[in-house]
Amino acid sequence: MNSSVADSADQQSTRAKLEEMGRAARAAARLMARADTATKNRALQAIAAQLDARRDQIAEANARDMRAGRDHGLDAALLDRLELNDERIDGMIEGLHQIAELPDPVGEIEDLKYRPSGIQVGKMRVPLGVVGIIYESRPNVTIDAASLCLKSGNATILRGGSEALHSNGAIAACIAAGLKEAGLPETAVQVVDTTDRAAVGALISMPEYVDVIVPRGGTGLIERVSREARVPVIKHLHGVCHVYIDDKADLQKAFNIALNAKTHRYGVCNAMESLLVAEGVAAEILPRLAAAYRDKGVELRGCEQTREILADCAAASDSDWSEEYLAPILSIRVVADMDAAMEHIAQYGSGHTESIVTEDYSRARRFLAEVDASSVMVNASTRFADGFEYGLGAEIGISTDKIHARGPVGLEGLTSQKWIVLGDGHIRE
Amino acid sequence: MNSSVADSADQQSTRAKLEEMGRAARAAARLMARADTATKNRALQAIAAQLDARRDQIAEANARDMRAGRDHGLDAALLDRLELNDERIDGMIEGLHQIAELPDPVGEIEDLKYRPSGIQVGKMRVPLGVVGIIYESRPNVTIDAASLCLKSGNATILRGGSEALHSNGAIAACIAAGLKEAGLPETAVQVVDTTDRAAVGALISMPEYVDVIVPRGGTGLIERVSREARVPVIKHLHGVCHVYIDDKADLQKAFNIALNAKTHRYGVCNAMESLLVAEGVAAEILPRLAAAYRDKGVELRGCEQTREILADCAAASDSDWSEEYLAPILSIRVVADMDAAMEHIAQYGSGHTESIVTEDYSRARRFLAEVDASSVMVNASTRFADGFEYGLGAEIGISTDKIHARGPVGLEGLTSQKWIVLGDGHIRE
Repeated sequence: MNSSVADSADQQSTRAKLEEMGRAARAAARLMARADTATKNRALQAIAAQLDARRDQIAEANARDMRAGRDHGLDAALLDRLELNDERIDGMIEGLHQIAELPDPVGEIEDLKYRPSGIQVGKMRVPLGVVGIIYESRPNVTIDAASLCLKSGNATILRGGSEALHSNGAIAACIAAGLKEAGLPETAVQVVDTTDRAAVGALISMPEYVDVIVPRGGTGLIERVSREARVPVIKHLHGVCHVYIDDKADLQKAFNIALNAKTHRYGVCNAMESLLVAEGVAAEILPRLAAAYRDKGVELRGCEQTREILADCAAASDSDWSEEYLAPILSIRVVADMDAAMEHIAQYGSGHTESIVTEDYSRARRFLAEVDASSVMVNASTRFADGFEYGLGAEIGISTDKIHARGPVGLEGLTSQKWIVLGDGHIRE
Repeated sequence: MNSSVADSADQQSTRAKLEEMGRAARAAARLMARADTATKNRALQAIAAQLDARRDQIAEANARDMRAGRDHGLDAALLDRLELNDERIDGMIEGLHQIAELPDPVGEIEDLKYRPSGIQVGKMRVPLGVVGIIYESRPNVTIDAASLCLKSGNATILRGGSEALHSNGAIAACIAAGLKEAGLPETAVQVVDTTDRAAVGALISMPEYVDVIVPRGGTGLIERVSREARVPVIKHLHGVCHVYIDDKADLQKAFNIALNAKTHRYGVCNAMESLLVAEGVAAEILPRLAAAYRDKGVELRGCEQTREILADCAAASDSDWSEEYLAPILSIRVVADMDAAMEHIAQYGSGHTESIVTEDYSRARRFLAEVDASSVMVNASTRFADGFEYGLGAEIGISTDKIHARGPVGLEGLTSQKWIVLGDGHIRE
């Protein structure tokens, strides 16, 4: 048998396997949709207890993945993400308790109103159905994603990175045991246990079994999934976030925000990557800020006007304006005014998070209304663009799409609304 | 030059043309997003005035389409949909006035709350951006679609059926003139003026220029668009709607609802196609209903138990249960109880509209919560599933999707929400 025939047979069996999981998920989704809040919370607590009770098995499975990872030459950052130590298991347990405490969005009825015909019309929040989640090597995402889907009444199929196969298997066993304990179907959370890459292709092309796909990972993964998916995708692409310091800004607030937005954490999507400064205040604020950035080890790359003010600043190239550094690097551009800043943001921003620092009422109002991004801020650090900070409790990702869910996606983003109509024998005349 | 080379050259030029329209739409969308309510309403009124002033030109263009349609042997139903008489022009004008009077969803701020960090977080409603609409031969859809997109602050690219090319061109001229009069970009509404079918393929595969596609038309069109689209699609597939008459129903209400849901109009997606009756009341209600249906000329197709009660009822085949008749035909099934009815609906329903007739509180509560459809009703006719009846004012379609918009899609369905954050120099600790 030649290898391409073998490959294709493998692919077919992977597809058949995923379809079987899909059918099971679809059936489980109906039971999950009608599970009451107490039952779902009991399952979350039971999973937490299972994780606690099976620490040894999880550690052992993780050690196998770590050994294999080292043998395959994974770099230190990947190995770090792969590792499940006691502290990380504590974090997963804590996350489960937190999600159990969040209000249940399912069944919430909004805007129930009488219409002139006499019927009452409103909207009821309902689960999406089956959520497919594709992620990379961090095994704690298995718990994050499963618990958010469970609480929002969805069934889920999880496909983690192949490096975490054994760790995810051990976690999946805890989830299954917890679901069973609470009387929920074990197939409500299924973890794909093959490393065959065809599994991703199958998962994203079964609209009959999967209602939405959430890819969590690098841009390569997300672009592939978006390109090939036959089901809707809630996706998060780049975070090229800006802070614009207006010439009517309170410069102390501007200093604090621009410093925090860049240096609070570097490798996160809501970190500022480009600073825009109105030319009226550039000479006053930039030297102070540059000194503070240098103390933190941030490399600066500026436009020509910036470099006239900051003599030792490197020159920014055009590609810097669209770069998501995720690193201690910052591009700086001096702009004429807010309109020029908004123009720059429209051209180079990625629609993630944009902030203006100003004391001017009319400009704040215009910036809020006109800037097209998932989060638009006035006098606040871009670092606030986060599910916990927004009160969503937890997030499955930050969507840079406009359809369905935008910005941090929490429990509500994993639900839909159906219309409900209450009548008393009403007919249409 | 051989014909496939010529075809491919044509396709390329169509694609280039659509991309140019896409770029213009993207630019117009930025201006539309910031247009205030008064300006948008002025444009709607101006378009209405243009339609009124140019009735002769519209009639002339429509006559050309009608002649060509007759020459090409279009059937009577298609010719009827294609025709623009004075009454239909009045209808378009009236529709424009109605949409001008609807509240503007853009800029509406919801749930603005203080968070423990001190920032205020809320959501602001914003346009989607560029909406592509693909529809068949009814030229009045051009005005419906354009006016809903305009009021919701979107730019739009419209691709109507090739049979309506001249009619749509005449209407497009009115829209352009109205937009110009109000000081809005004429490219905010663009009508594709080529009959090349490659235009559809291009329109649905430009995610850089088009944010969402709304196909309006037959199942074939919608399935093709869904399969090939590279941008999100708000789609409406079948309407296989049920009324379930429970054994705790008020039988007079049940009679009225079952009759109205089937016979109020036949060719609409919210008409009942299958009637489910609890066996406890079947013998009592079915003969009365059957007589009423027969008076209206409705053909009945029943399950075995139905046929034991209705001697002259034809036998339903298994395919009847999933059929969207859009005609005076009704399938009838006697079921054991509500659970059996919900099982039938889960298996055969299309997720459009489902109604229970019952006086039982607990069953009504369960049916509402557990049935998975875009509209779920108690004691009301399925015919109420409609944008006007729900108070949306007008609808661009009825979505059977769960993602983004579900059920009747009005102005709000053509918008998204962005997060807004108001701070006073807040940084993340």
